[in-house]
Amino acid sequence: MAILIIASHDRPDWWARELQQRDPDLDVRIWPDVGDPADITYALAWKPAPGALASLSNLAIVFSLGAGVDHLFEDPDFPAHVAVVRVVDPYLTAGIREYVLLHTLRYHRNQPALDQQQRDHVWDDRARELRQADEQGVGILGLGELGQASANALSNLKFDVAGWSRSPKDLPGITCFDGRGGLDALLGRSRILICLLPLTPETEGILGAELFSRLPMGAYLINAARGGHMIEADLIPALEDGRLAHATLDVFREEPLPGDHPFWDHPQITVTPHNAAITDPRSVVIQILDDIGRHQRGDALSNQVDTRLGY
Amino acid sequence: MAILIIASHDRPDWWARELQQRDPDLDVRIWPDVGDPADITYALAWKPAPGALASLSNLAIVFSLGAGVDHLFEDPDFPAHVAVVRVVDPYLTAGIREYVLLHTLRYHRNQPALDQQQRDHVWDDRARELRQADEQGVGILGLGELGQASANALSNLKFDVAGWSRSPKDLPGITCFDGRGGLDALLGRSRILICLLPLTPETEGILGAELFSRLPMGAYLINAARGGHMIEADLIPALEDGRLAHATLDVFREEPLPGDHPFWDHPQITVTPHNAAITDPRSVVIQILDDIGRHQRGDALSNQVDTRLGY
Repeated sequence: MAILIIASHDRPDWWARELQQRDPDLDVRIWPDVGDPADITYALAWKPAPGALASLSNLAIVFSLGAGVDHLFEDPDFPAHVAVVRVVDPYLTAGIREYVLLHTLRYHRNQPALDQQQRDHVWDDRARELRQADEQGVGILGLGELGQASANALSNLKFDVAGWSRSPKDLPGITCFDGRGGLDALLGRSRILICLLPLTPETEGILGAELFSRLPMGAYLINAARGGHMIEADLIPALEDGRLAHATLDVFREEPLPGDHPFWDHPQITVTPHNAAITDPRSVVIQILDDIGRHQRGDALSNQVDTRLGY
Repeated sequence: MAILIIASHDRPDWWARELQQRDPDLDVRIWPDVGDPADITYALAWKPAPGALASLSNLAIVFSLGAGVDHLFEDPDFPAHVAVVRVVDPYLTAGIREYVLLHTLRYHRNQPALDQQQRDHVWDDRARELRQADEQGVGILGLGELGQASANALSNLKFDVAGWSRSPKDLPGITCFDGRGGLDALLGRSRILICLLPLTPETEGILGAELFSRLPMGAYLINAARGGHMIEADLIPALEDGRLAHATLDVFREEPLPGDHPFWDHPQITVTPHNAAITDPRSVVIQILDDIGRHQRGDALSNQVDTRLGY
């Protein structure tokens, strides 16, 4: 039994070091130094090269490093019989929650306008609308681990929070909508809309002109999920006709965002470099080793992904 | 019995309208249309003109509109026999709490550097230090209503929060320091320092070179209390020698901040126009009328200020 780390983005040596600190007897290998592919029972993966996982004949479990598993299913040769485990990292959840709070508060308090006032040396203490948090409709697309953590943190600050998910949810203090029918109701009440959806064929391109037209005029958008959720060509027109007031984006169709992309210089767009949350090896490695133990004893895995639904 | 509104800054007609909506029989007057000064029993005041309150021979209570009462004691003729009531406004507290969270999160996540990266079209997802909230020492100067609300909100997000006050406090989840001896300990652990002190002769000028030198190198400063807390000439040198990394200021010695003040254009200073929190007439008027009722029945007032301590 050997563990392969195949992380195109995160530093694979971190993960190897953390694993071996916990258990020095582990046989940990780092792609592309696989050795005998038949040795590999477990893989820790982030955007693995297409076909790489299929080449491991005895692979039993893939642990996804980071939020979302869409990066695995992009591989047309992804081996369908392999179990996929989504790692739940409290630090990753905290990172998303912080990002959502920071940028929601920034919009709630009209900080982009205050930044402009500073550049212009203008003192206008009425620039912040006297709207209380409980008068601010915040909508969250996606009520998984990250959506729920964000919704609860916003609700603790008295925002008027609603969420939307594929299947019905019942969360204290959060107005929950579901299914196609529920989406309109959510959008109509959301002055600040936050996308934390999984990327699936159903949610690909959901953030586009059609959805924007169902938001209140002058709404704010925060996308901390995946670049594939947005139809990028629809964003600047929506900002320029006033449908959207501002957008904060951590994710893009192409990452790194190309240097000549129009989002960089648009005054109504905040670009962050897909760093809203970073999986922290310290807590994740404990979960991975725990699940490897379960697998070896024949017990059920924690946080196994439903590969039909894609999350 | 008449009520005088003497608010140099906030819109006096708001307050009059809110009072009369609650009780149409009230005799409400707006400075300078006082009528017979001997009619005035109660005053709602924000930065009253010096001598104005002393001219009201039957004045019994001054209600301070806004956080802090230093604006009253700046009047050398302030009538010492008059009771001063500090209005506790949940919306004002929420406003300060939001401001503190927004700017603390902004520093925690290194957003000023990410803003610079955006201007430079630089994609560097390592610009955010992988420091968790529980590794981020946040220090709050002042543990009154506003300091406690801010400390609790930060503690809920898992920040390592400490506070400092004149007299000892014991607050769950907050490391509390007090007195001169406690200040050093607080400063030494505060990578982000937030001032929410009352302005008194003891706290005037507390934010200066001597205090900055006791913070960790590269600390962040947020002042949402009073301009008089800061020795303004000490700030830019501390930013330029790296002692402080950045400062966010809502309050200044002179307000509005003069158009040629060097703070406006300094890349390590965020200026907001003293709008962190605005007292909301809706909730405050209920408290004021309640206290007028207590006074007329001879009962103790709520939130009466100790005029010796000045808060």
